[in-house]
Amino acid sequence: MKKLLILPLFLGGFLFAQSQADSLQFKKISDHILVKGEAYRDLTELTKGVGNRLSGSANYDKAVKWAEAKLREAGADKVWLQEVMVPVWVRGKESLHIKTGNGGWKSVKMLSLGNSEGTGGKDLTGEILMVNTFDEFKKLSENQVKGKIVFFNFEWRHDYVEPFKAYGEAGIYRRNAASEVAKKSGKAAIIRSLSSAFDDEPHTGSLRYEDNVVKVPAAAIGNHSADELAKLLKSQKVTAKLNSNCGMKADKLSYSVIGELTGKKDNSVIIAAGHLDSWDVGEGAHDDGSGIVQSIEVLRTFKRLGIQNNHTIRVICYANEENGVKGGYKYLEEVKKSGEKHLFAIESDAGGFSPRGIAMDMPQDKINQIKAWSNLFLPYGIYDFEKRHSGVDIGPLKQIGVPLAGLFPDPQRYFDIHHTHEDTLDKVNRRELLMGAIVLTQLVYMIDKNW
Amino acid sequence: MKKLLILPLFLGGFLFAQSQADSLQFKKISDHILVKGEAYRDLTELTKGVGNRLSGSANYDKAVKWAEAKLREAGADKVWLQEVMVPVWVRGKESLHIKTGNGGWKSVKMLSLGNSEGTGGKDLTGEILMVNTFDEFKKLSENQVKGKIVFFNFEWRHDYVEPFKAYGEAGIYRRNAASEVAKKSGKAAIIRSLSSAFDDEPHTGSLRYEDNVVKVPAAAIGNHSADELAKLLKSQKVTAKLNSNCGMKADKLSYSVIGELTGKKDNSVIIAAGHLDSWDVGEGAHDDGSGIVQSIEVLRTFKRLGIQNNHTIRVICYANEENGVKGGYKYLEEVKKSGEKHLFAIESDAGGFSPRGIAMDMPQDKINQIKAWSNLFLPYGIYDFEKRHSGVDIGPLKQIGVPLAGLFPDPQRYFDIHHTHEDTLDKVNRRELLMGAIVLTQLVYMIDKNW
Repeated sequence: MKKLLILPLFLGGFLFAQSQADSLQFKKISDHILVKGEAYRDLTELTKGVGNRLSGSANYDKAVKWAEAKLREAGADKVWLQEVMVPVWVRGKESLHIKTGNGGWKSVKMLSLGNSEGTGGKDLTGEILMVNTFDEFKKLSENQVKGKIVFFNFEWRHDYVEPFKAYGEAGIYRRNAASEVAKKSGKAAIIRSLSSAFDDEPHTGSLRYEDNVVKVPAAAIGNHSADELAKLLKSQKVTAKLNSNCGMKADKLSYSVIGELTGKKDNSVIIAAGHLDSWDVGEGAHDDGSGIVQSIEVLRTFKRLGIQNNHTIRVICYANEENGVKGGYKYLEEVKKSGEKHLFAIESDAGGFSPRGIAMDMPQDKINQIKAWSNLFLPYGIYDFEKRHSGVDIGPLKQIGVPLAGLFPDPQRYFDIHHTHEDTLDKVNRRELLMGAIVLTQLVYMIDKNW
Repeated sequence: MKKLLILPLFLGGFLFAQSQADSLQFKKISDHILVKGEAYRDLTELTKGVGNRLSGSANYDKAVKWAEAKLREAGADKVWLQEVMVPVWVRGKESLHIKTGNGGWKSVKMLSLGNSEGTGGKDLTGEILMVNTFDEFKKLSENQVKGKIVFFNFEWRHDYVEPFKAYGEAGIYRRNAASEVAKKSGKAAIIRSLSSAFDDEPHTGSLRYEDNVVKVPAAAIGNHSADELAKLLKSQKVTAKLNSNCGMKADKLSYSVIGELTGKKDNSVIIAAGHLDSWDVGEGAHDDGSGIVQSIEVLRTFKRLGIQNNHTIRVICYANEENGVKGGYKYLEEVKKSGEKHLFAIESDAGGFSPRGIAMDMPQDKINQIKAWSNLFLPYGIYDFEKRHSGVDIGPLKQIGVPLAGLFPDPQRYFDIHHTHEDTLDKVNRRELLMGAIVLTQLVYMIDKNW
């Protein structure tokens, strides 16, 4: 009887002591980052010193140099550049004007969608045909669409508590509108921006041309302009004049930037990641400067606090998330070649807002292991461990069975500024950004210790 | 055996059906507010149309008229003004300069603390004496302090995950510095602002003069200036020159604005509240325009959705939270006279940020009743039902045993802008503000239905 009692007591005591030790380590990480964290200073350098940094741009090359230096400075044992061929899309000058029967041309704020071909600098003029959904569009004959500029007026679902759900649903218009219009011989596509804001900011983002369709131009307009255009079109014909110089150039050699703390026990890898590229408007502050500087902070914090890492902790600043995901696929290819064992990967690419949870994309037994730590995370505002999308760049690693996760920050502000001129440093709050870095570091610490 | 089984099954089924119905009602409330909510439009009117609105100011009178009209427009059965005498503090022109031995005067950004007496428009000059804490100050003799301008350089605890804890600790310097300085014959007090930001914004806020002490002037400076001043003082004497015209005038008749939906079953009262006054800088957008427009949204949503309220749902736009809490005490006084039964009161006065929980200040059995609804709230991001401070204005109702609660929004950004020129509409995100209104409405709905 005595022996039977002692074992659970001993185990209970052991687990309690473990949890106490973890709780203290969590606090050390938090205290350190909140007071001495450099993620916000890093983000200031990246946004104000480098600026936006689309794949293939001169700014992206600057960002590579910056990330390389920053990882060395943070104390990485090893830093290297992973070569990857990336698409080079260039925007150039662009404009959209509309007019009704008797009026003059009126300028409309717009952004060509990423990867879109332009009008070659010539005016492309046509009558606007409005549809609200693809279902409506499918019912139209080729004759009805031919020669028209089609306006996809799909409304953002403001009623969703989770804006990512609205983004998911609206995303198909951004990606597919151009090809669908081309298939029915339309001239161009205009979409209502994927935006939760009640303003006139156009949101760019990538489209994908299907093979063997004409590459017609596509652009986004802001919610106010979309509302006005929709109203006009209810009572009269509206003509649009699009002029753009954007287009795809030849692929270019570029780089993901990788830095790591080599494992003290073995070389299996734990990834903390973000993407180094951004759209060519704004400063890529939330998307995804935040994820980059938070990931670097993970490595720096391990180093500064002298936490001994059992496994290799690898920070990846992925190339080309926005318009190709070439960095993510290249990394997978290299892992397949090297056969390096990967224990876990987490990406921060949902903005530098106050974190609420960890998005889980892994088998249930792994989810349960992480959920068992939830009491440790709760004092840091982390309560949500639901199955969700992890991250676009680490996504390919699912093919080789790596448990994937994503930092899940408060989502309410993101799609007001995502892919716009407004994604700038002043939209990022220092403490919110640091809280994200804290949670990433804490989770990497637990995985490193227990897996 | 059969009977024994049927009862729990029946009860279980009943409870499940109830919870399903509540869940649907929660969604209706959320859908309605996210799409048709007017809280952000109301906040635009209050911040841009009225502006900041310190007790006793002409703007406060405008705010009273605005709130009265707004509550009527929202569909209140009854709207009235509750008379209350409020203090009238006026800022006027003010400046602070410092100089070291051989240098010229250098201007320092500052704000007099609310309720502070000024220098009567004359230069008050004196050597600066720096202390970091009251403990240090206590060790100084009257001779050491006499004739000095004392700089309380108490550092904000950036390491706390909960900034309200840092605010609580730093708050005693703002409230008590002036009186402590006066007791040792100092000339004036300067404090490091109660600020989580790494900038130079001074934060005002009220001080309290003890009875029978000389009312020496007190002002706050921003973190950058405080850092610089502290650095200077380590190596040399620094003289300050304060000039301010602020001071307390005679009390004035003012009003809290109250609107209600009369109870359909009885007249016991459920309160949703905020405070209508703000500091005299910025626009009082987060503090507490947000709480006002969210509370009004509760009433409007009940009305628009045709939800039958059993009890009286009363929205209180309290007068004079910032520098006297006269509105809160007056309301208690009136309740004591009328004997009106109060079931529950909730205040929103921690900013219009994404809500995370409900701050609970009530007996454990009541806490448990609300916690039993936590699954309903979770899809709206509400997971925190801890014992916390509820709200300053409803606080006095604790004397008569009313269960008190507060909306608990994400706290990370609040003390960057609290009581500063920067508390403006652009710092409030529409969706975050509306999420707060949703949770307030859902909670009032549950209390009304079940208590």
